[in-house]
Amino acid sequence: MKYCCQCGSKVRIGVPQGDDRSRHICDACGTVHYINPKVIVGCIPVWGDQILLCRRAIEPRLGFWTLPAGFMEMGENLATAASREAMEEANVEVEIDTLYHVFSLPHISQVYVFFRARMVKEIYFPGYESLETRLFLQQDIPWDDLAFETVRRSLAYFFADRENGEYVMRIEDV
Amino acid sequence: MKYCCQCGSKVRIGVPQGDDRSRHICDACGTVHYINPKVIVGCIPVWGDQILLCRRAIEPRLGFWTLPAGFMEMGENLATAASREAMEEANVEVEIDTLYHVFSLPHISQVYVFFRARMVKEIYFPGYESLETRLFLQQDIPWDDLAFETVRRSLAYFFADRENGEYVMRIEDV
Repeated sequence: MKYCCQCGSKVRIGVPQGDDRSRHICDACGTVHYINPKVIVGCIPVWGDQILLCRRAIEPRLGFWTLPAGFMEMGENLATAASREAMEEANVEVEIDTLYHVFSLPHISQVYVFFRARMVKEIYFPGYESLETRLFLQQDIPWDDLAFETVRRSLAYFFADRENGEYVMRIEDV
Repeated sequence: MKYCCQCGSKVRIGVPQGDDRSRHICDACGTVHYINPKVIVGCIPVWGDQILLCRRAIEPRLGFWTLPAGFMEMGENLATAASREAMEEANVEVEIDTLYHVFSLPHISQVYVFFRARMVKEIYFPGYESLETRLFLQQDIPWDDLAFETVRRSLAYFFADRENGEYVMRIEDV
């Protein structure tokens, strides 16, 4: 951030009165600009024994496999955001199930929220951000070609929990 | 947002190619500005049978009672943010316990994340954003003078769960 988005003046970096962190401050109009972590919401779409993954058509990690997930938008709740992302990336209708994983990624200031989800019908095809969408059995998951550590960990927990017969909500750092 | 924070030019509102939502777009430098929901993180600090509340010294809801909570900052994880807020608002050292409530507030594009927490010692006093800090027994909770519906609901669930002998993680819209 170099300019004030309210008045267009140059901003400076400083600690506002009563604060203890550096912020972007506009001396012209007095606005303090706060930048905060973003929320990424996704789901594990389940169809019988299979999981739906998407191969990314966009950077970062173009060509790698991921769970449908993306930035939560203004005016959404978490579950709505998760089902919207599934529809956008895989044209799949899901019923959102329980909250499943909450990952903090402090190094990139993101919070990942994953739900378990049931595919309503066996219909899916790539959206704008996907090259390919495909159902995978556990033994076919492309572990070496997953896009993100959050996705790898979420899938690993899912299969372990499924084998144990109990899905455990986890909150962790990645 | 009226000006581009990267180059200072006026922005326009439009739907970028491949997107389906209106964003602030800078035609001068090509930046698309995304605005996303913010995360508010807090805790329920427990000392024996009592809960620590803070009376707000700042707007909104100046003078009303709240749980220590605030905006998650860049580079934090959720639990760290919750304990930092407890220290900032009530100078209380807490051990963060389980994730307890996740509230979506789509009308103001916020996600509230509350943890249960144990006070490490019976030391607390108002921080910069608090007029007063106080331990409350259940029967003394100032229900009519709570600052936010999220706080009211979180406390109500807490006391109900405590009576039932089981703390249940909840994810809801407020």
